[in-house]
Amino acid sequence: MGTLASDGYEPALLKLAGSFLPKNPEKPVPVIVCGMAGAKQGWTEAAYRAVPCKPVAEGQMAQVPTRDPRLSVSIVPGLCQTKPANVMRGEETQLAGLVSRLGAIDATVCMPGTHSKWVRLEAGQVASFATFMTGELFAVIAAHSILRKTIAAQGEDREAYLGAVSEMLDDPGGLTGALFSIRAGALLAGLDGAAARSRLSGLLIGAELAASRAQWERRAVHLVGAGSLTAAYSIALESAGAKPVQEDAEALTLAGLAQVRGPMSRTMLRDTPQRLSRRLSERT
Amino acid sequence: MGTLASDGYEPALLKLAGSFLPKNPEKPVPVIVCGMAGAKQGWTEAAYRAVPCKPVAEGQMAQVPTRDPRLSVSIVPGLCQTKPANVMRGEETQLAGLVSRLGAIDATVCMPGTHSKWVRLEAGQVASFATFMTGELFAVIAAHSILRKTIAAQGEDREAYLGAVSEMLDDPGGLTGALFSIRAGALLAGLDGAAARSRLSGLLIGAELAASRAQWERRAVHLVGAGSLTAAYSIALESAGAKPVQEDAEALTLAGLAQVRGPMSRTMLRDTPQRLSRRLSERT
Repeated sequence: MGTLASDGYEPALLKLAGSFLPKNPEKPVPVIVCGMAGAKQGWTEAAYRAVPCKPVAEGQMAQVPTRDPRLSVSIVPGLCQTKPANVMRGEETQLAGLVSRLGAIDATVCMPGTHSKWVRLEAGQVASFATFMTGELFAVIAAHSILRKTIAAQGEDREAYLGAVSEMLDDPGGLTGALFSIRAGALLAGLDGAAARSRLSGLLIGAELAASRAQWERRAVHLVGAGSLTAAYSIALESAGAKPVQEDAEALTLAGLAQVRGPMSRTMLRDTPQRLSRRLSERT
Repeated sequence: MGTLASDGYEPALLKLAGSFLPKNPEKPVPVIVCGMAGAKQGWTEAAYRAVPCKPVAEGQMAQVPTRDPRLSVSIVPGLCQTKPANVMRGEETQLAGLVSRLGAIDATVCMPGTHSKWVRLEAGQVASFATFMTGELFAVIAAHSILRKTIAAQGEDREAYLGAVSEMLDDPGGLTGALFSIRAGALLAGLDGAAARSRLSGLLIGAELAASRAQWERRAVHLVGAGSLTAAYSIALESAGAKPVQEDAEALTLAGLAQVRGPMSRTMLRDTPQRLSRRLSERT
């Protein structure tokens, strides 16, 4: 959404997946989209559904007008919460995948990212959720603040990371003061670039864990994500005594998308989500 | 410091104040500098003095080699604190001005800015201090994060501001979650650009006040700064029941610089700080 105008989505889709389409299908091929394509500045707006509700609902998708007659595109709506005001787009599909696997249980879900989500599922419905700007704050502070002089582009220091997590769990309100300590530590105590990077990450993730403590204390946490960011959440949660259960984010997305199509349509899918994912990966 | 190389300071000074210098003085004219010119990447490094200590000390200034024989430039050292690591440059001179006016008392000093300082003076010495990245976080979040789409370039909304301050005082750990509520509020509840701007300011200043509560609860706070930022701190502190005492930042800087020269030199100053400030203002 950050780089495409509204009329740029269809060409982008055809470039990515056009060769999957038959040349002259009897009827248009259903394509299901989730995420920011449904935002007001996206492809076609898919109005938010309000929680509490199921993560996705058949028959409530936004239909997208397309020029290519082979396409029948629909977008999964995001979710909104009134008090306190909050929104998600994309995560609802992963949550649908999780519910399709776990059944209609109560669960806590942590979804690390640019805007991390903490979701409370109750009987398979999204009861409430919170968003933390953790990933985006890391990016803008590392790139644009005085700390950019101190923070290495890569590298990690596990001790500095976990120390910072623990500092925030002990003093949740200390974030904006602790951030400057990264600069002061570099000037006075030789804090190196990798340790500074890990400390920034630990302070921000630690602040998020401190604010969501009620969600993970004495409860299992389903951790939906991939790569080093999710691994960082996992070790932070473990160090705080929580029990994160790693979930495969891509498999959940694909399972959620299949869920949206409804039971009859799902039997029509030639590929399992895993095989589809592999085929897409081979193409990019 | 952000725009000058080390050899750019002397020409910059001569451009600003060169006409104050006699053409052929009997001896070089003393020029006293405070602030980031004394940083490692500044004009000439003035090594930090460690707290607890007086804000400034005669005879501990860094001498700067100059090409113009009419100049004798010295830089006031900043202060450092080991545990927790912290640094200041420039504020120590304002603190010296404050101590010269108040005498060797105990006091709490709040110095709003890019990197806000909270300073504890004991018997006229700097006992300890903390730094909050409040001003810089406001700038980078407003310019570079998703909230830039929501935050107006100017305008203010007192109710949104004080509401956000109070939210942070009640829930000091909620900052990174509350930040996203600005985006969600704009999408769902029509939060306008000026209210969004005030809310961002209130969340960040509120988080700072929450973290420094022990410094202002049941104590007067000397508030050193100017303009709308300092006014915002003042109303936030008052709304929390504190008693901010507004200090004239420029007058304190000039009084502090005069202090550094020592008693004998001060009698040689032809201008009072206020008159000197006026003369400088007329020239720029």
